[in-house]
Amino acid sequence: MPKKKKYPRESFVSMTELVLPNDTNTLNNLMGGRLMHWMDIVSAIAAQKHSNRIVVTASVDNISFRHPIQLGNVVTLKAKVTRAFSSSIEVRIDVDAEDIPSGKKMESNSAYFTFVAVDQSGRPIDVPEVEPETEEEKAMYEGALRRRQLRLILAGRMKPQEANELRSIFDIKETQA
Amino acid sequence: MPKKKKYPRESFVSMTELVLPNDTNTLNNLMGGRLMHWMDIVSAIAAQKHSNRIVVTASVDNISFRHPIQLGNVVTLKAKVTRAFSSSIEVRIDVDAEDIPSGKKMESNSAYFTFVAVDQSGRPIDVPEVEPETEEEKAMYEGALRRRQLRLILAGRMKPQEANELRSIFDIKETQA
Amino acid sequence: MPKKKKYPRESFVSMTELVLPNDTNTLNNLMGGRLMHWMDIVSAIAAQKHSNRIVVTASVDNISFRHPIQLGNVVTLKAKVTRAFSSSIEVRIDVDAEDIPSGKKMESNSAYFTFVAVDQSGRPIDVPEVEPETEEEKAMYEGALRRRQLRLILAGRMKPQEANELRSIFDIKETQA
Amino acid sequence: MPKKKKYPRESFVSMTELVLPNDTNTLNNLMGGRLMHWMDIVSAIAAQKHSNRIVVTASVDNISFRHPIQLGNVVTLKAKVTRAFSSSIEVRIDVDAEDIPSGKKMESNSAYFTFVAVDQSGRPIDVPEVEPETEEEKAMYEGALRRRQLRLILAGRMKPQEANELRSIFDIKETQA
Amino acid sequence: MPKKKKYPRESFVSMTELVLPNDTNTLNNLMGGRLMHWMDIVSAIAAQKHSNRIVVTASVDNISFRHPIQLGNVVTLKAKVTRAFSSSIEVRIDVDAEDIPSGKKMESNSAYFTFVAVDQSGRPIDVPEVEPETEEEKAMYEGALRRRQLRLILAGRMKPQEANELRSIFDIKETQA
Amino acid sequence: MPKKKKYPRESFVSMTELVLPNDTNTLNNLMGGRLMHWMDIVSAIAAQKHSNRIVVTASVDNISFRHPIQLGNVVTLKAKVTRAFSSSIEVRIDVDAEDIPSGKKMESNSAYFTFVAVDQSGRPIDVPEVEPETEEEKAMYEGALRRRQLRLILAGRMKPQEANELRSIFDIKETQA
Repeated sequence: MPKKKKYPRESFVSMTELVLPNDTNTLNNLMGGRLMHWMDIVSAIAAQKHSNRIVVTASVDNISFRHPIQLGNVVTLKAKVTRAFSSSIEVRIDVDAEDIPSGKKMESNSAYFTFVAVDQSGRPIDVPEVEPETEEEKAMYEGALRRRQLRLILAGRMKPQEANELRSIFDIKETQA
Repeated sequence: MPKKKKYPRESFVSMTELVLPNDTNTLNNLMGGRLMHWMDIVSAIAAQKHSNRIVVTASVDNISFRHPIQLGNVVTLKAKVTRAFSSSIEVRIDVDAEDIPSGKKMESNSAYFTFVAVDQSGRPIDVPEVEPETEEEKAMYEGALRRRQLRLILAGRMKPQEANELRSIFDIKETQA
Repeated sequence: MPKKKKYPRESFVSMTELVLPNDTNTLNNLMGGRLMHWMDIVSAIAAQKHSNRIVVTASVDNISFRHPIQLGNVVTLKAKVTRAFSSSIEVRIDVDAEDIPSGKKMESNSAYFTFVAVDQSGRPIDVPEVEPETEEEKAMYEGALRRRQLRLILAGRMKPQEANELRSIFDIKETQA
Repeated sequence: MPKKKKYPRESFVSMTELVLPNDTNTLNNLMGGRLMHWMDIVSAIAAQKHSNRIVVTASVDNISFRHPIQLGNVVTLKAKVTRAFSSSIEVRIDVDAEDIPSGKKMESNSAYFTFVAVDQSGRPIDVPEVEPETEEEKAMYEGALRRRQLRLILAGRMKPQEANELRSIFDIKETQA
Repeated sequence: MPKKKKYPRESFVSMTELVLPNDTNTLNNLMGGRLMHWMDIVSAIAAQKHSNRIVVTASVDNISFRHPIQLGNVVTLKAKVTRAFSSSIEVRIDVDAEDIPSGKKMESNSAYFTFVAVDQSGRPIDVPEVEPETEEEKAMYEGALRRRQLRLILAGRMKPQEANELRSIFDIKETQA
Repeated sequence: MPKKKKYPRESFVSMTELVLPNDTNTLNNLMGGRLMHWMDIVSAIAAQKHSNRIVVTASVDNISFRHPIQLGNVVTLKAKVTRAFSSSIEVRIDVDAEDIPSGKKMESNSAYFTFVAVDQSGRPIDVPEVEPETEEEKAMYEGALRRRQLRLILAGRMKPQEANELRSIFDIKETQA
């Protein structure tokens, strides 16, 4: 029996947060930890929508915080599932911030969070596969393999030499010569 | 005039948190986003202690969440600066969790957060260099270069081919032979 | 010079919240006050987007809470400006809740919040008018006058006899015969 | 057997809150949503005291926010049950704010919240009737019928033409002629 | 010119709190630290009302927590100024808890908090004296001297031998014979 | 069978907190109640580590707040068990605050909290005795008896004349001569 597939758009979630005083440091900038807390919630909801399961955060990929987000800014987080591997679900999150009175928008930030779908006793359970539709979704679907290998290497669960997909970004043509 | 140096132990910070109901998901497990929020606070304090400056979160390296942490557990986060590059400061955080009544300890988790030291107007400002003392500190100091290259590549600010330190983990010596 | 107009879709905001333990009462149902807190934030953001101003909550229309929302549910709040009168902005909020693991959706709830746009010293300031596009937006635009009269009467600032728009819902045609 | 009756003063609750930074917007004014959250808690306690039951918020009547309440102000909320209908309980809340160092008091605000008393499985259950004592309590008891009709109409559960009590405020004498 | 006096009832404050999940430990009992947080807020408001000044917490007397307060209980805190010494203000707080559905009330708890009234730059400033009216207020006014000596001794700012008021409770009459 | 003993260092806990806007009053000073909340958590963890049991706060000794702690300061709380009596555990907490950018440290503050170890049904249960090692620990162990008598007297559970240990601080030897 073929496994059920779902489209990325079926798991799409948008979340809006207002930066309040307790979210900021002494420069009145949003603290990175607070933003990651929101990223975790919005991406967990996307992973839940894809799997119709309880999900637990398994890993977070490298995140850069480029532009300070200020007190009073409106932060919009958009999450969408990119690919699933058995019980694990990768979600991409895009973050934008806006100072509405001035109309000034901050350049976007993005991140990948990975979740594991579990049953009521906390055991991993398989989830539907992802069927990308748009060009962008297909690119993210392809890249998921590479990101997954990097995650496994960084967690010490794969040897770098075995990471074929990932090696490509380190100029495989020469090194395989 | 030689630049001031500081030891990693001078920036050491230990933080203890009790997992409360609002920190948990419906399985009564600590949510990953909440843990990252704590990681950000403890490592920002370490970076502040190293630099005696206000610091802003610049990036977070890949984090894996291996073992669920439960409601009522005591979480201990330990942070120490590993290396500094001009105005940027890398901090390593080690996390342990314990169910004190049963004496059961969860296996540790670790992460690297990078901060930028800024002056009162938010402009980057140089910080003291790091002088590692123990073997472990020296290993983390060395590894900082490799992690920095990975961060730059992932942020699109360095070409993989230029990442000499990082290539080594992909077994570059053989492949370039 | 004609006053600037904006479309309702320009102020559209979607916000997603996860119901956490502290948001619930002893039956594990979302407390009404917590939901209203979220409604206020999402609609204030919509009013800000319409006016590009700081806004303050001026009034809240009658809200009914029909179906209990449970711990762990995902709540989606959607807000859109319906009409503006000088410095005052009416926003409609639609609320849905979903128990994602079971796929069960709760019937929607809706509310109208009114804001006043103010300048930096807190004085009311005029905002763009609203140009409804869809049939639904036009109906909400028309209804705004009636809701406004009811608000003014309930606040003791208009006599019921003067509320021509509102009287229509009490079967004015007959009674004026 | 006659149904038990309770006096409004038996359910009286007074609650005091200090406006903290996270309760305020960028003008340092208390956000309306935060105030409604407090109103919901204080009135739920009053409804609990009247019914000795768990209660759930059923509806909130139109609220106007007249005067901005500032950071550092002390807010006093007073709640008292006005009338009960089977399992439903109407509560009136009066809000005052004070800037204690200057002794400046803000003009009061008021609201009506309605609750349903439920048993442990969440099913509605009858509550004692209300026996008003003072002139003010009697006026609120009388007005409860009118407010209830308005609520039912606004929730689409009563036709305006049937709302005899409510029609009176729209100049019934003429219309019934 | 005689210094202004105020009655204890002029500073009376009553505060009601609902025990939410995050306020409790793993036995679902209200945590002592949370209760002290509320005690501090209610007594600071009483001290503010007495002095019409900003106040800072100076000390807290010994508090015993006799009976566990449960999740869902309603906690009532009542605070009243007992006596003032130059810029310092002693406040007594009485705490009651009630499980409203069962009508079960927990035995009361009490505490004394001391505040210092300060001006805008944080310097201590004199406050009105207290004029006790009832017998209970007079007893608390008298006891304030004894409690003050104990505080000074415990803070190492008075020698026990000089604490004449306090010595009386250790049966000084005999021992001085 | 001899009862198990534990060293104070086995229960040592260090906790670090950053003072955020919501923790402060209108002078931007940390509120005393917030600090007590943190003291309660850190000392409860120390008492749990000593007893490997759930613990409930039984009492708090007199605390003085000497120096204001500011917004943005880093607060370090260190807790260690000093002595145990059957099911009750005394913990000493030392608090330091630091303004890291300026390197300015606030003078330390200290407090004693007492906990009762309980089983799953909330009944008191015996805990290991304390074996002090350092001179400071021995002094705190000795002083515990005196502090305990003061607590019992203040709670009305011991007559002052019976408090032999405590009388010594009021210069009993001379006065009984």
